[in-house]
Amino acid sequence: MDMIIVMKSSATAEDEQSVVERIRELGLTPHPSRGEFRTIIGAIGQKTPQLQQQLEQLAGVDEVMAITQPYKLASREFHEADTILDIEGIRVGGPHVNIIAGPCAIESREVLFGVARAVKEAGASILRGGAFKPRTSPYSFSGMGKTGLEILKEAGEAYDMPTITEVVDPRDVDVVYQYADIFQIGARNMQNYNLLLEVGRTDKPVFIKRGLAASITELLMSAEYVLSQGNHRVILCERGIRTFADEVRFTLDVSAVPVIQERSHLPVFVDPSHAAGKRDLVPKLALAGIAAGAAGAIVEVHSCPDRALCDGPQAVLPNNFVTLMEQIKQIAEIVGHRVTLWGREEEQSRRPAVGGWAG
Amino acid sequence: MDMIIVMKSSATAEDEQSVVERIRELGLTPHPSRGEFRTIIGAIGQKTPQLQQQLEQLAGVDEVMAITQPYKLASREFHEADTILDIEGIRVGGPHVNIIAGPCAIESREVLFGVARAVKEAGASILRGGAFKPRTSPYSFSGMGKTGLEILKEAGEAYDMPTITEVVDPRDVDVVYQYADIFQIGARNMQNYNLLLEVGRTDKPVFIKRGLAASITELLMSAEYVLSQGNHRVILCERGIRTFADEVRFTLDVSAVPVIQERSHLPVFVDPSHAAGKRDLVPKLALAGIAAGAAGAIVEVHSCPDRALCDGPQAVLPNNFVTLMEQIKQIAEIVGHRVTLWGREEEQSRRPAVGGWAG
Amino acid sequence: MDMIIVMKSSATAEDEQSVVERIRELGLTPHPSRGEFRTIIGAIGQKTPQLQQQLEQLAGVDEVMAITQPYKLASREFHEADTILDIEGIRVGGPHVNIIAGPCAIESREVLFGVARAVKEAGASILRGGAFKPRTSPYSFSGMGKTGLEILKEAGEAYDMPTITEVVDPRDVDVVYQYADIFQIGARNMQNYNLLLEVGRTDKPVFIKRGLAASITELLMSAEYVLSQGNHRVILCERGIRTFADEVRFTLDVSAVPVIQERSHLPVFVDPSHAAGKRDLVPKLALAGIAAGAAGAIVEVHSCPDRALCDGPQAVLPNNFVTLMEQIKQIAEIVGHRVTLWGREEEQSRRPAVGGWAG
Amino acid sequence: MDMIIVMKSSATAEDEQSVVERIRELGLTPHPSRGEFRTIIGAIGQKTPQLQQQLEQLAGVDEVMAITQPYKLASREFHEADTILDIEGIRVGGPHVNIIAGPCAIESREVLFGVARAVKEAGASILRGGAFKPRTSPYSFSGMGKTGLEILKEAGEAYDMPTITEVVDPRDVDVVYQYADIFQIGARNMQNYNLLLEVGRTDKPVFIKRGLAASITELLMSAEYVLSQGNHRVILCERGIRTFADEVRFTLDVSAVPVIQERSHLPVFVDPSHAAGKRDLVPKLALAGIAAGAAGAIVEVHSCPDRALCDGPQAVLPNNFVTLMEQIKQIAEIVGHRVTLWGREEEQSRRPAVGGWAG
Repeated sequence: MDMIIVMKSSATAEDEQSVVERIRELGLTPHPSRGEFRTIIGAIGQKTPQLQQQLEQLAGVDEVMAITQPYKLASREFHEADTILDIEGIRVGGPHVNIIAGPCAIESREVLFGVARAVKEAGASILRGGAFKPRTSPYSFSGMGKTGLEILKEAGEAYDMPTITEVVDPRDVDVVYQYADIFQIGARNMQNYNLLLEVGRTDKPVFIKRGLAASITELLMSAEYVLSQGNHRVILCERGIRTFADEVRFTLDVSAVPVIQERSHLPVFVDPSHAAGKRDLVPKLALAGIAAGAAGAIVEVHSCPDRALCDGPQAVLPNNFVTLMEQIKQIAEIVGHRVTLWGREEEQSRRPAVGGWAG
Repeated sequence: MDMIIVMKSSATAEDEQSVVERIRELGLTPHPSRGEFRTIIGAIGQKTPQLQQQLEQLAGVDEVMAITQPYKLASREFHEADTILDIEGIRVGGPHVNIIAGPCAIESREVLFGVARAVKEAGASILRGGAFKPRTSPYSFSGMGKTGLEILKEAGEAYDMPTITEVVDPRDVDVVYQYADIFQIGARNMQNYNLLLEVGRTDKPVFIKRGLAASITELLMSAEYVLSQGNHRVILCERGIRTFADEVRFTLDVSAVPVIQERSHLPVFVDPSHAAGKRDLVPKLALAGIAAGAAGAIVEVHSCPDRALCDGPQAVLPNNFVTLMEQIKQIAEIVGHRVTLWGREEEQSRRPAVGGWAG
Repeated sequence: MDMIIVMKSSATAEDEQSVVERIRELGLTPHPSRGEFRTIIGAIGQKTPQLQQQLEQLAGVDEVMAITQPYKLASREFHEADTILDIEGIRVGGPHVNIIAGPCAIESREVLFGVARAVKEAGASILRGGAFKPRTSPYSFSGMGKTGLEILKEAGEAYDMPTITEVVDPRDVDVVYQYADIFQIGARNMQNYNLLLEVGRTDKPVFIKRGLAASITELLMSAEYVLSQGNHRVILCERGIRTFADEVRFTLDVSAVPVIQERSHLPVFVDPSHAAGKRDLVPKLALAGIAAGAAGAIVEVHSCPDRALCDGPQAVLPNNFVTLMEQIKQIAEIVGHRVTLWGREEEQSRRPAVGGWAG
Repeated sequence: MDMIIVMKSSATAEDEQSVVERIRELGLTPHPSRGEFRTIIGAIGQKTPQLQQQLEQLAGVDEVMAITQPYKLASREFHEADTILDIEGIRVGGPHVNIIAGPCAIESREVLFGVARAVKEAGASILRGGAFKPRTSPYSFSGMGKTGLEILKEAGEAYDMPTITEVVDPRDVDVVYQYADIFQIGARNMQNYNLLLEVGRTDKPVFIKRGLAASITELLMSAEYVLSQGNHRVILCERGIRTFADEVRFTLDVSAVPVIQERSHLPVFVDPSHAAGKRDLVPKLALAGIAAGAAGAIVEVHSCPDRALCDGPQAVLPNNFVTLMEQIKQIAEIVGHRVTLWGREEEQSRRPAVGGWAG
């Protein structure tokens, strides 16, 4: 997209329709986005001064802007306010801080239900659990697959939490769609473009982890793949980059949080668990991320990490998670945010409906 | 796999069968690999001294070894000699140096045929060309798809060169199999495990590029995904890693060549084009790779790089490629290798059939 | 040092003396360190079981331990409790959080006094300002030298703040010693060993910044250079490492804070200014560091950054520094620390004298 | 420097003098450099179009150019042809390839003389040996100091080889100057600016190793520190950068060789020994560097590496060094270079005196 067309607040549906049609006639692809007060229409393609002028003269058009970044729909230029998603009644982004918690892999009904209850009680709002696990070795446990998804869905319903799980294969998008509330795209798949296009064609939120050597621009371009398909519900996640520093598994790049927020309207989370690689460091990194302004954290919690089939050493114990939630809540407030506890916020009913183009 | 069972050269097919069955009874998974002179059987699973002793006593067994590396079938411990592949009559690996050349993306019949003729004449033995291009931006040219594959196959036949092309989606493995001779797994997909498993179930060679932040161990683990499915025809490629050094696109890690050769029996290539990102540096890096002992290089060549739809700035011009081939040939000889020119080697007929487990 | 000898709390000065002499006789170098309740003596050199046994039998010896880390005096094995320094009455380390603030370079009396007053009022406890500036270009402003030191000393006295300034040349150690309270060793000089030895021979605190490609172990080894000369007053500082991520100047490795704290007893600061490279990110990174448990932050503040002779773009404005100090104070409390405001802590008088070997 | 003034070949000494004086009057600093056919004068300072015009009108001035790079005297803009140094009769740079060899540290007269004889016989032209060794640990052997320098000088004289040794402290520049022919600035001291200034004030060649996280620009800026003091005899060295790749000690960035050559006229060497960290890889990396066009390599050779006091595992054995020299010689020829063997080149007498501003 080379231009975004900002419609006047007084523009009619017919005005919008005319602009969309005109964009098509000009050989560009229109991306309309209806916000509370006005509509914005993206126009992807070769921009020329003449085109811009032509579009500016159409009825209902307030302004036509060029977007200079390689990412378009993901950029702040396109959408100035923070995007706030509504995921099963839970607000994600803007001032809302959400903690996603659960085991790395779904291993059994007992373990998942136990962890789900614990993290829910501690204040987490979204439940995580992997059914399809990308593993470095072909000889490692790679998840329970569909059975795992069934258990996850049950646990989410039992504890009234939306669920998130990783999808690694475009062929699995349908089955994951049936069971989970949020698609997770792992770091290794951040540039698996066909997978991104596939989840971009659904209407469920997509949580994209930064690749371990991905620049911020590349992360936003991956978000653009999803956005370009019409799915505007994208969450980004800094999960640690690979550097020479080998004392931890990955180097959590906390500066990515404010840098992304400056460039994009999408919510940014941190993943302290994979960055740290060991339990003791997880709370420190989680707090650092929240202090830097992150919209949340995704934390691995396990009731019995020694027996975990995957990434046990980095799983936080439930009682430590309680302490962590308490500190997160306090730090979020200091930086002007507030934590969505247990999937509910009392003051939500008193505020107007969530604005934003993401609908 | 925790053990490899080396059969005596005198062992019979029945001996092999007995060992395979015994391995299964012991709760391990057998991986038989028949070489010219003897068979080697991998046994994945929990190894104990008792197990080792039991297996050593079976008829036809010469030796039972534990493999200490996380990668098993890819390790030198498992297969001591260099693997030499036979791809449509061309030898790859061991002392054979092959140059793969062609445009980044297949753009038209004219361009591809022109480049194919030029690189063939200069001495390249394998033709490259992308039909499915993973691009950072969803708005960039992403390849001609199946039409591109058809043109590639025609060009390969016209100039008597095996062809290599990238596959990015497990759903495309079948169609790529029909048209190309070698599957290329790009750096972004090095850990797309389902894709690796899918090409591992075919009988065509798989050329795996190192991910831009992948360790050598992780690269070998990705090879292991292919090998574990029974496809033993794997080639590895160092293509530059991402470092702080931003004067070039990626930092070609030439040391990866000897390091991989020390640990694995698989052929190792270098990709100077993606590492350099600009034409002038490509020959320097190609020569450095060959001097370090690489089994070949994959070089982007384009007759009209200014009009290339993808990665034009890094494409070498045909006449520069002629000079480069001449230097490669000489340097290969100095380090004890020789270049497979135009897909033929006169002395091949005089040497015994290629050994090696890869068949 | 291969061993540390922990003396009994009942050991006499004579016992200590005997042990020290015995260590010398055995061909090792003794490093006695007298704490509140007992003395610990390091013995550097080749350790053998016999030596250990011989030392254990001496009068007053409670325990003899080998130190496994390459850094000895810097390790937690050697000194289990957090080291708390007393710098002109200000406690640094342990639960105490100190903010060091001031301009990058000392440019004039007016600017420095203005900034000093502002940061003092906002709550900073230590004043920074560079007189010898290492600059990438030989044609850049490299500091006011001795004149700058004089101004710094005056400003420190005027606002009752200890001062810190960088020393880059072993020949300047004497002059810097005369004017400043803390030696700063910059990232570029972290492995300038002769400089480290020289400041190690003084009795003023040394603030060592991590080199931009230094591992934690290497940073602790640099501390060891200072400690080995008898100067036990060392502070460490994470200031951002060089990675592929070029959206910021350096990647602040917040995980370094808890990792160092696990391995060493020395206080750890963060430098958000050099990591960020731009003003807007500085508060975010400062808060992240404090949330991760840092003992303080060193922040560049300038009243008129547009006219700063060095690193203007990363200098925080005085009024933003006020807000930052307020947030730092609150976050420090949440993680169990407290900020040393204006160089004073009311409760200090009520607590016993600072323990710790650092005296 | 913002401008370089190229004098006409017909310009007289008086013309030059007038230009130099005019530059001074204009408030800039002149840097005259007399080549074979014409003189070039650098003018550092604020450049304006008027200044440029004024200078262009002076007698004997052919052209006035602005230099856009931050490094000036080091840039190809300033000096287009390769600089060729004459070090005790040995040509370094341009088409000349020199191999510097010797032990890491000078340990004894016997060892150094033995190694010197071996490397001389194999064809090395310059002798290396460390007397002041920067070591990560304060408890490691740090060199023999002045005694070592004496032995080095003797060995150089005995085997008719110029010598190179590291200097780590500005206070040691005088003593090193007395004994060695080339100052080596190690990677850790690449940005020890006072040290660079100090060696810049001498007339002996300075061999600067790239810092392990230094960009090419930063390396050239360090060269600029030396050049700016009037010492134009600088050699650069790529010695491996620190990346996530931990299979080798450092990642030899071979692309640095052509990148530096594009930007600067100074000779570029590679150090395969420190990059590899282990003996077996050293020849591979040395050949890669020479194939990429390096002006030489600095190789650690030790007759008894197991007993070496420093970096034994990466020292090549004398007999392997013979083979390596043979391969280097051949590869150098293929890429258009030739090796300076045993400090002599027959054809030198037949060629005209070395040109170049470095004189």
